[in-house]
Amino acid sequence: MKWGAVIVAAGRGTRMRAGDNKPYLPLSGKPVLAHTLDAFERSPSVAEIVLVVAPGEEERAASVVREAGARKVSAVVPGGAERQDSVYAGLTALSAEGALVHDAARPLVTPAQIEACCREAERHGAAALAVRVKDTIKVADEEGFIASTPERRLLWAVQTPQAFVREELLEAHRLARGDGSPATDDAMLLERRGRKVAIVEGDYLNLKITTPEDLPVAELLLERRRREETDL
Amino acid sequence: MKWGAVIVAAGRGTRMRAGDNKPYLPLSGKPVLAHTLDAFERSPSVAEIVLVVAPGEEERAASVVREAGARKVSAVVPGGAERQDSVYAGLTALSAEGALVHDAARPLVTPAQIEACCREAERHGAAALAVRVKDTIKVADEEGFIASTPERRLLWAVQTPQAFVREELLEAHRLARGDGSPATDDAMLLERRGRKVAIVEGDYLNLKITTPEDLPVAELLLERRRREETDL
Repeated sequence: MKWGAVIVAAGRGTRMRAGDNKPYLPLSGKPVLAHTLDAFERSPSVAEIVLVVAPGEEERAASVVREAGARKVSAVVPGGAERQDSVYAGLTALSAEGALVHDAARPLVTPAQIEACCREAERHGAAALAVRVKDTIKVADEEGFIASTPERRLLWAVQTPQAFVREELLEAHRLARGDGSPATDDAMLLERRGRKVAIVEGDYLNLKITTPEDLPVAELLLERRRREETDL
Repeated sequence: MKWGAVIVAAGRGTRMRAGDNKPYLPLSGKPVLAHTLDAFERSPSVAEIVLVVAPGEEERAASVVREAGARKVSAVVPGGAERQDSVYAGLTALSAEGALVHDAARPLVTPAQIEACCREAERHGAAALAVRVKDTIKVADEEGFIASTPERRLLWAVQTPQAFVREELLEAHRLARGDGSPATDDAMLLERRGRKVAIVEGDYLNLKITTPEDLPVAELLLERRRREETDL
């Protein structure tokens, strides 16, 4: 199956106090987005990348693409109001049969993880990278008391990439836009339609840059990974 | 209400490759356990600390207590096979009316968080520190596919301390020991008995040292907190 990736870099980053959008913040000497692009550039299954950015930042994103030497990027398109709108915009600009969706704010993703998602989606139709939940999770009631404790061994924190048949994901997005029910990830849209989504075990290091505190942590992890690779 | 704390430092730390038990690993120049003790020493509501350690490590723990100048520690007792057994051992050695339970592997807990748990437990009978879940959580089926996506706004990752009326928690432990049903935290034992446990919003920095990767991260966060306190 031929694969394309929608990389979503359209977030306004309201939780970042740094006064800048997450994709453009520096991480170990280059923008967060450049790290993310690099992982997809090095994934042999990925033939095409559509980059979705905040409206008005197309030029800025294009210059990161150029500096990163990301030659698979076929389009830089403006995103919408919500993440879901941005993914949809990216999917419509993609041409490959398989669609990976990835958040630019996860710059530590590896080509091996991307490939594993493609393989599982080729076998099962849809796949999502996830890690086992280490914490005990509580479901709260509306008054702020604990309502229940779901069994931990069955809980996963889902990440990206998530991999789908592009036409199926597009159709699920169209239906969700129709009924106005938001989703926090793409797998959820397919789950609602009864589609089985396979879980691909990922890595805790594939963290999402959400607050400024995450940047030095990501830097530390990136440097350790480099040292380990050099030691091999 | 008078409060005592059971600090559980009895874990074997099998996920730590450092060849040492988590409580004794160095964090910013002193053992993880010394940081944890310090937070409870500085909490005005806490009158008494029972420290639960791995059998055979009583002397080692006692020397950390001495070096930390932790004068509230009334007993150092050996733990059991599971965390739950260790908490139970600690509770039986505690005399205060209120019991806080805390994992030694959360050294970044603050006196303010401990006090907030005491206050909420005084109002509602039981309370647990927790943070909102940032990830999308998936419940898996037994075959490794996604079964459902619980609504994120109601999900919390529970931490410690957790605060209870000591007699109630002891009774819940006794009942759980009787029916052999394990729990991943103490709140769960009370929930099963129909007791309402209040959620106290904590802080992501109150992380649990689980793997060696967590130590430099904790160090970074600790140093940042110190800088911020100095800047005030």
